[in-house]
Amino acid sequence: MIKTVAYSKTQQISKIDPASISDYLKQGDLVWADINSPKDADYDILSEIFDFHPLAIEDCRSKFHLPKINDYKDYLFVVWHAIEDISPNHASDNKIKTVELDIFIGSNYLVTVHKKQIPYIDEIQQKVLDKPSMMKLGLDALLHDILDHLVDEYFLNVDRISNQIDTIEDVIFENASKQQIKNLFSLKHQLLFIRKIVAPERDIINVLSRSNSDIIGGQLHIYFLDIYDHLIRILDLVDTSRDVIGGAMDIYLSSVSNRLNEVMKKLTIVATIFMPLTLITGIYGMNFKHMPELDVPFFYYGTLIFMVMFAIGMFAYFKWKKWW
Amino acid sequence: MIKTVAYSKTQQISKIDPASISDYLKQGDLVWADINSPKDADYDILSEIFDFHPLAIEDCRSKFHLPKINDYKDYLFVVWHAIEDISPNHASDNKIKTVELDIFIGSNYLVTVHKKQIPYIDEIQQKVLDKPSMMKLGLDALLHDILDHLVDEYFLNVDRISNQIDTIEDVIFENASKQQIKNLFSLKHQLLFIRKIVAPERDIINVLSRSNSDIIGGQLHIYFLDIYDHLIRILDLVDTSRDVIGGAMDIYLSSVSNRLNEVMKKLTIVATIFMPLTLITGIYGMNFKHMPELDVPFFYYGTLIFMVMFAIGMFAYFKWKKWW
Amino acid sequence: MIKTVAYSKTQQISKIDPASISDYLKQGDLVWADINSPKDADYDILSEIFDFHPLAIEDCRSKFHLPKINDYKDYLFVVWHAIEDISPNHASDNKIKTVELDIFIGSNYLVTVHKKQIPYIDEIQQKVLDKPSMMKLGLDALLHDILDHLVDEYFLNVDRISNQIDTIEDVIFENASKQQIKNLFSLKHQLLFIRKIVAPERDIINVLSRSNSDIIGGQLHIYFLDIYDHLIRILDLVDTSRDVIGGAMDIYLSSVSNRLNEVMKKLTIVATIFMPLTLITGIYGMNFKHMPELDVPFFYYGTLIFMVMFAIGMFAYFKWKKWW
Amino acid sequence: MIKTVAYSKTQQISKIDPASISDYLKQGDLVWADINSPKDADYDILSEIFDFHPLAIEDCRSKFHLPKINDYKDYLFVVWHAIEDISPNHASDNKIKTVELDIFIGSNYLVTVHKKQIPYIDEIQQKVLDKPSMMKLGLDALLHDILDHLVDEYFLNVDRISNQIDTIEDVIFENASKQQIKNLFSLKHQLLFIRKIVAPERDIINVLSRSNSDIIGGQLHIYFLDIYDHLIRILDLVDTSRDVIGGAMDIYLSSVSNRLNEVMKKLTIVATIFMPLTLITGIYGMNFKHMPELDVPFFYYGTLIFMVMFAIGMFAYFKWKKWW
Amino acid sequence: MIKTVAYSKTQQISKIDPASISDYLKQGDLVWADINSPKDADYDILSEIFDFHPLAIEDCRSKFHLPKINDYKDYLFVVWHAIEDISPNHASDNKIKTVELDIFIGSNYLVTVHKKQIPYIDEIQQKVLDKPSMMKLGLDALLHDILDHLVDEYFLNVDRISNQIDTIEDVIFENASKQQIKNLFSLKHQLLFIRKIVAPERDIINVLSRSNSDIIGGQLHIYFLDIYDHLIRILDLVDTSRDVIGGAMDIYLSSVSNRLNEVMKKLTIVATIFMPLTLITGIYGMNFKHMPELDVPFFYYGTLIFMVMFAIGMFAYFKWKKWW
Repeated sequence: MIKTVAYSKTQQISKIDPASISDYLKQGDLVWADINSPKDADYDILSEIFDFHPLAIEDCRSKFHLPKINDYKDYLFVVWHAIEDISPNHASDNKIKTVELDIFIGSNYLVTVHKKQIPYIDEIQQKVLDKPSMMKLGLDALLHDILDHLVDEYFLNVDRISNQIDTIEDVIFENASKQQIKNLFSLKHQLLFIRKIVAPERDIINVLSRSNSDIIGGQLHIYFLDIYDHLIRILDLVDTSRDVIGGAMDIYLSSVSNRLNEVMKKLTIVATIFMPLTLITGIYGMNFKHMPELDVPFFYYGTLIFMVMFAIGMFAYFKWKKWW
Repeated sequence: MIKTVAYSKTQQISKIDPASISDYLKQGDLVWADINSPKDADYDILSEIFDFHPLAIEDCRSKFHLPKINDYKDYLFVVWHAIEDISPNHASDNKIKTVELDIFIGSNYLVTVHKKQIPYIDEIQQKVLDKPSMMKLGLDALLHDILDHLVDEYFLNVDRISNQIDTIEDVIFENASKQQIKNLFSLKHQLLFIRKIVAPERDIINVLSRSNSDIIGGQLHIYFLDIYDHLIRILDLVDTSRDVIGGAMDIYLSSVSNRLNEVMKKLTIVATIFMPLTLITGIYGMNFKHMPELDVPFFYYGTLIFMVMFAIGMFAYFKWKKWW
Repeated sequence: MIKTVAYSKTQQISKIDPASISDYLKQGDLVWADINSPKDADYDILSEIFDFHPLAIEDCRSKFHLPKINDYKDYLFVVWHAIEDISPNHASDNKIKTVELDIFIGSNYLVTVHKKQIPYIDEIQQKVLDKPSMMKLGLDALLHDILDHLVDEYFLNVDRISNQIDTIEDVIFENASKQQIKNLFSLKHQLLFIRKIVAPERDIINVLSRSNSDIIGGQLHIYFLDIYDHLIRILDLVDTSRDVIGGAMDIYLSSVSNRLNEVMKKLTIVATIFMPLTLITGIYGMNFKHMPELDVPFFYYGTLIFMVMFAIGMFAYFKWKKWW
Repeated sequence: MIKTVAYSKTQQISKIDPASISDYLKQGDLVWADINSPKDADYDILSEIFDFHPLAIEDCRSKFHLPKINDYKDYLFVVWHAIEDISPNHASDNKIKTVELDIFIGSNYLVTVHKKQIPYIDEIQQKVLDKPSMMKLGLDALLHDILDHLVDEYFLNVDRISNQIDTIEDVIFENASKQQIKNLFSLKHQLLFIRKIVAPERDIINVLSRSNSDIIGGQLHIYFLDIYDHLIRILDLVDTSRDVIGGAMDIYLSSVSNRLNEVMKKLTIVATIFMPLTLITGIYGMNFKHMPELDVPFFYYGTLIFMVMFAIGMFAYFKWKKWW
Repeated sequence: MIKTVAYSKTQQISKIDPASISDYLKQGDLVWADINSPKDADYDILSEIFDFHPLAIEDCRSKFHLPKINDYKDYLFVVWHAIEDISPNHASDNKIKTVELDIFIGSNYLVTVHKKQIPYIDEIQQKVLDKPSMMKLGLDALLHDILDHLVDEYFLNVDRISNQIDTIEDVIFENASKQQIKNLFSLKHQLLFIRKIVAPERDIINVLSRSNSDIIGGQLHIYFLDIYDHLIRILDLVDTSRDVIGGAMDIYLSSVSNRLNEVMKKLTIVATIFMPLTLITGIYGMNFKHMPELDVPFFYYGTLIFMVMFAIGMFAYFKWKKWW
């Protein structure tokens, strides 16, 4: 599905038919074409109207690409990733997924291609229609606006993950369920995934904030540097969170070892108290004819008392040794 | 076995006899010689007809070389690796092996040398014969085509390994067999092996995509950059997969520790319940003359009931402590 | 709350009203405006009077920023962090926190913005009022003075942490409480946090010590290099301390393993001594009609003596094997 | 012991007396002096005849130096290491040792100094005497020949170590003896040792393959690059082998943990089966007057049958739980 | 305490009074002032006579500085560290400590400042007085001599540590005492400490061996490069030793795990042999009226024989399984 807006020199903005894009381009109007969930026919516009390089179009078609930027002189081709919108009824599945957003930006056109809906793209297109002056600032400013928003979404997600990690970390020393450990590893996975996406995006922004061309104007450099700062902050938060996970796992493993120690101490105490007592009962359970103690009237009670005192003594000993 | 094709200026393509290569070269025709499983005599062509440097020929002869590129001014010498074709009847042995592919590319010749069959080489030679226009694009385009395909095969294999890892990871928290852990290490080996091969190949492609010579034409730079992107993606997937294996092993070890803990708790519970009970039976099994309880009619039943209640109580206690 | 001082060419210093800042600036006076816990209205001064870039002002408003430096030609914008002052009644909570200090420095003005009070800022402003000659050295010297002091506070804190680690390390081999291990991880967190802040600050100081502008005078380069040295020392101390923590954890884990070993040896000794003895009593507790030993008068005592000797012998054996 | 050969312009080669070296050098002959196991007097030749720098001579005298290259303008000073020849009767001690080989190469002389015999040096000197044309290629070619051979010996040794590691790795999952683990660590030591030697040698060769002087001729660059490739391969093999050792140790530790788990399960099974049975016998061993079961004729057999069935049932339960 | 020597143009050397330093400097004499354990007044010489920068003097006063070099144009300021001399009666405390040595070197003066005695400094000053020609070589040569000696002392200490590690490593597989493990960690600490000091010293020497000034003469470059080589060797030995410690700890932990395994096997064997035997005695200790075996004359002996055979059989089984 292709939605296109054109902004004419006379400062009028309008939704236009994809078929008439080339007319508007010839007039020198600014054109933004957004291609959502493209069918095969939709890709033809890229080659036929815009005459983009076949390799770039192939990259649009392919399933998954790491973020990158290619400079085709007349236009820049950027592969970007947006956090996928999770509808409320899928909230239980909180794994982060991304939608690839392929961007072509030339001096008077911006083409965005994505296989799934990206809500912010629709939103900003609506905003542009409502307030044409936004487009007056140029397509590069529009691109900055889109990327800035998408980067903020990364930040929100990394922040959410970071909070989940902190929650688990707080209980991990006392007692952590198997599920929580599993969640910790899942969160680590997600952080690695975000790192993989954000690291090359930082490099792309670095290129954009230095590019000297008529595609990205010099007045935008400081704005792209601002996105660059945000990406650095995200990467920093990702790395800190991974450190925290590593530390939490160390705590967990040391607490598992500790608990094993505790369990074994308890077992040793039980064995050390009951085995001698059982031995005593065994001795007086022997059937020797000549066992004078057996005939002593209160020896039975004496034995019982001794056994109780022995048990109390051993227990006190272990208590004193801080084993219990 | 040497198969050679020549593409004349008059745009005719034909299989030619290796002996006549030098005639075609003199005419300025484009010549592609593919040497498969060479015998000693076959190497002579490299020195006698093409006059390649002895060191390069020695590299062709030797058993194993990491990928590299050497620039001998008149021609480039590239050592590449192709994933070895695994015939169906060897499917059980799924270790990745590579075939070394040595490539000489000059301005009007391409020589490929490999010790085992590489199916795609045969395929493309057949394609060229069927469709001479492919050769018109130049030997550098042909080289690009070959390398592009071989890189895609790496991708398929790394993807397959990555899926196998995910499968093992899914079960590793619950229960992993010794064999699965072994497989995990074997997959890690394979990833390390691919990394070792692909990393220098990335550097080779980087050189090719920048070379300013009449061997690799400038119009191919963007195409080699595309291969470069693919190799980056492969390395990225390899690194991610290794991270996943590392995480999976951590999960595995933590679950082994956990299970040991569980086993020891069970043992402690069994000992803590049965040792006191056995002690009681021991006490009433003693042969003291004066043991008044023994004469009390229902003391036996009382003792049994006490023992059952003690066992239930202890069990409830451990249940409450979440040890069971 | 805004406190402003102006230093006129006639070398008079005075507290001035924020509203009259622009007048003083026009006269070419040196102005230092300190904005503490700013309300929304306070930010307007930044844009209206000083005309700072909106992105920089947004950075001031936002909650948390890693240290950075931005060069806006007319002025430098520095994000710095000061160790938060911990009042005595919060001494129990010894986690390190920082207050963000945003600094704008132009050729004749210095603006400092912070959301919480930084005691040293108040102190130095008072000093400047008491001794106007301090301001004569220039605003860059004033900035150096502030940063130098804040860096020293980092040093004190890292030193304190380092001492706490040493204290824990001393006891960790013998016996470490769960709380101490937790503290160790908490200290590691704090070190990581400081590292995250100090590393970019080092880069900022590096930029300041090389900048060739009329904002930071060349005669201050050697002084900023001195701060640079201090930051290097702090980072070095942080890294050494993290190494020490790593080593301490290794010691701890090895001592936990060792103690488990000790516990298991004790259990094995107890079982190995009492099980055979219990077996002997079991044998003579059997009810066979024909058990001649039972009738031998002193066999009972003999059995007891044998049991004691067996126990002593076993114990001596384990003692000799260094198990006890 | 000094062995010297001189190669005159008239293409004659001859063994010469060390005392006459300076005469030959003055005639412009090519001189190769090999000093084996030098005594103090032998070092004098270095200073008196060749006038080498005192620091370089001191390096020759000292016990151990990492490989390095020093450029003294008139000559290059190279510290190299050769694998020490292990005589068959020391075969049991298979630790790798190296002999330091100090090399001085000037435009018309080559001086090699080593404290122990290096067989290949003798061999090549004999070869040169047999076939003077070898020397015609120049002393730099001679140096290349020596280094090339010594590097190949590293390769053989690393390959041997790598095979030993693979052998141990194959058994490590099932059962590894203490000795095998020790060997694994010893092999790791040796790899680290080789790495330490080979890494700076790679840098030396890199320098030689780029040097633009009349000492190392430009036509040899490609040959030194070939040695460089070999050293890269050796380092790669060393690193791969270390990874394999790391993986093998992980497997070993996880299998030790696993086996501990197995042992504890067995112990738990034994305790869980026998403790309840012993309790039953304890109950019917009590001496209560009123125990009606004791009088029931076949209760004894019933109890035995119950005990056997209980044991079988428990065992089946553990079997089902895959504990046995 | 300040000891000063001056070397006049007329080649006379003499101890001079610190108060007259400026006179000698004016005459163009070479002056070396050594300040040992300075009191506050002693620092005044640095500022008043030599007019050194306040920051450098502050660095002299402060307690601890990592090695560094500052170029103040007229003179170089070097912070160095010497291994502290350990008097024999402190030999038991073998922790390495360093004395900070602050060095100012100008074209005709050398000032050395240290808070504790450094024996070699006294020694060399005496040597200079005995043999004035040493000073003729210049103050830079004198500096080289001092640093060269101090670096050799590092080497001796690292070598000693390395030998201690090897001693511990030899016993660690069999049996290592707690104290030895503690020592290992202490040695690692010391290595980290030396690394921290030596790494920046290497950079200082690198600067000195390249400096093109009239302070450090070009003829000394090769000599400073020699110190550089030594420092590289020290760092290499430190890193190798740390690797050895890491390996030793791995061995230790794996041997602790192994021994736990052994202990648990023994316990399991004991339980597996004695529990069934005790059960048998329990069975024949039951008080059932109808237990025909009890009346069979030799059943008692048969039972005893069976028990012995069972025990032997079990033991043989475990022996065969290599558990004992």
